[in-house]
Amino acid sequence: MTVLILTCRQDVTADLVVAELREQGVPLVRFDPADLPDRAALSAEFDRGDFTGYLSTEGRLVGIHGLRSIWVRRPGRPAAHAANPSEWLTAECGQALYGMLYATTARWMNHPGAAEPARHKPFQLRVAQHSGFAVPSTLVTTYPRAARDFAVRCADIVVKSASGPPSVDPPVALPTTRIGPDADFSDVAAAATLLQRYIPKRADIRLFCVGAELFAARKTAASGQVDGRFGCHGHPWEPVAVPARIAKSVHAYMTFTGLAYGAFDFAEDADGGWWFLECNQGGQFGFVELETGQPIAAAVASWLAAPHTARPRRSPPAPRSAEPPGAPPMPPPEAPPETPPGIRPTHHGL
Amino acid sequence: MTVLILTCRQDVTADLVVAELREQGVPLVRFDPADLPDRAALSAEFDRGDFTGYLSTEGRLVGIHGLRSIWVRRPGRPAAHAANPSEWLTAECGQALYGMLYATTARWMNHPGAAEPARHKPFQLRVAQHSGFAVPSTLVTTYPRAARDFAVRCADIVVKSASGPPSVDPPVALPTTRIGPDADFSDVAAAATLLQRYIPKRADIRLFCVGAELFAARKTAASGQVDGRFGCHGHPWEPVAVPARIAKSVHAYMTFTGLAYGAFDFAEDADGGWWFLECNQGGQFGFVELETGQPIAAAVASWLAAPHTARPRRSPPAPRSAEPPGAPPMPPPEAPPETPPGIRPTHHGL
Repeated sequence: MTVLILTCRQDVTADLVVAELREQGVPLVRFDPADLPDRAALSAEFDRGDFTGYLSTEGRLVGIHGLRSIWVRRPGRPAAHAANPSEWLTAECGQALYGMLYATTARWMNHPGAAEPARHKPFQLRVAQHSGFAVPSTLVTTYPRAARDFAVRCADIVVKSASGPPSVDPPVALPTTRIGPDADFSDVAAAATLLQRYIPKRADIRLFCVGAELFAARKTAASGQVDGRFGCHGHPWEPVAVPARIAKSVHAYMTFTGLAYGAFDFAEDADGGWWFLECNQGGQFGFVELETGQPIAAAVASWLAAPHTARPRRSPPAPRSAEPPGAPPMPPPEAPPETPPGIRPTHHGL
Repeated sequence: MTVLILTCRQDVTADLVVAELREQGVPLVRFDPADLPDRAALSAEFDRGDFTGYLSTEGRLVGIHGLRSIWVRRPGRPAAHAANPSEWLTAECGQALYGMLYATTARWMNHPGAAEPARHKPFQLRVAQHSGFAVPSTLVTTYPRAARDFAVRCADIVVKSASGPPSVDPPVALPTTRIGPDADFSDVAAAATLLQRYIPKRADIRLFCVGAELFAARKTAASGQVDGRFGCHGHPWEPVAVPARIAKSVHAYMTFTGLAYGAFDFAEDADGGWWFLECNQGGQFGFVELETGQPIAAAVASWLAAPHTARPRRSPPAPRSAEPPGAPPMPPPEAPPETPPGIRPTHHGL
């Protein structure tokens, strides 16, 4: 049973997991959809109720029925490396490849059907509320006046991108920026803008959930620091224990979204409380593993290598609506309930 | 409680449903994501565990909590009509809009998380096999030799696009084309190609599943006709009864994929058997309704207008792997089993 890793050629994070899988003696194939159809090939046949198929790349051939798991790491755009690339060639090759893979019994980290809603920040915030996390007050708006009112109420806010920095050449950084209520909000009308109450933080927390395993790391913040991704503050990432209440909320979040992997960002406030900022379903872990020595790549490898079981957790649960009708009102974020409303057991397996 | 229709301005199919909803006295808002942020606006606030939000377009304002359903008809690309459109503006506005909508309790026709896998033809074929449909032998491949072998085995095949015609200007038609085993298959290496055993057909069947309701129409084929979408053969669409076995398979397919709406294409063979060709999760119904008088738009409107229930069927079930491990081998398509393997009851509601 083979592990399929969908990623591009230059991917150090995938390299870490590949090394772990090799050490565990687990067969794997690294496949870049961009290599279709010139440097990689596929074939799938449907005949009298039966389905067979295989993928081939760099001289390796793997049967579709032999796939135990699929890791969607950083796949290239289908047929991007083709001699004559086109939108249509990308569509045809993407249809063939992902259509084949959806038809397998493999477990996904993460299934694209679960990843799609989970990429959206407003959905993340709502699921986080229901999962019992403390979530800073947040506004997403195209109304300058709503933005101004929010800033006045919060007094101290940050503005950040919902979708990340623009893909331009040369690349631009788009750090989270702290602003006050007297800022000029007229440009809010030009694009949906995400504003969030500023949480004075004493540390950044990055928490990785890999299946059921949790790894958290903490990085002390410089005084007044807003966005820890930019600038060097001299503080290293250090392993930190996960409070039981946070662990419970993380598992609720993962169940609700159907993700098998998630990289959570928190701000640790002056009282030691963890505030949910976001969950990146494809977030990096290599830089934390290198500094803390936490065995995250090994955990990913073990999850991918796990054998099929009689009732495998191999399919994502529904990307569900974030709020059941008639759910009890949420308590304030300072006191998340022991059993967050809105979460019910999820139905894995068939 | 309002129905939200995500579609572009010119959409006759949406017009039919809007007319039905107006007749039923159901409030609705028609919203084109392309109008963000200049001609449409949005705002969502997350505060102390609570979530409020609204959308505004053409002077109408609708609260997010007042949405009963969302119809993803033919939405424009977010911010496509903006004064200064860009990839990044599209990403930011899309994040804000869809993130808000995923966070609501509304029922979806169809949820993007369910629609994404369901668009892929190889996945469709595998789910169709498991749902008990007769499926023509099909090969999706980049191997010229596999294509040639398949053509020799089947003797008479058609070649079709997996993803539809290319988006080029002027538009090109890409009809399904009948070929024999002596064709030149060398170009198969240049793109994933879909080949299918030719089913000599006496009619095309188009079946619409709207929630639990089924509407089927039949169009007698001209002698030797391959692709009924092209050319005028003088035969009108006529209503046709849905065989019980087909109805059962359709419901299994919908349950498996989590779709609320699907347009199924079948070929009726000389013995009256229906062969599954595809299920288009966003397929048109207007042209059939106009010819047959079947109340499909009314059914869509009724589904969208249905009130929330205590345990609503509002969230898509998992886009599941198409094949459980250890499933018994499928019988030949001529005799679909009474209970197709691979299908289990699906868990709607929370």
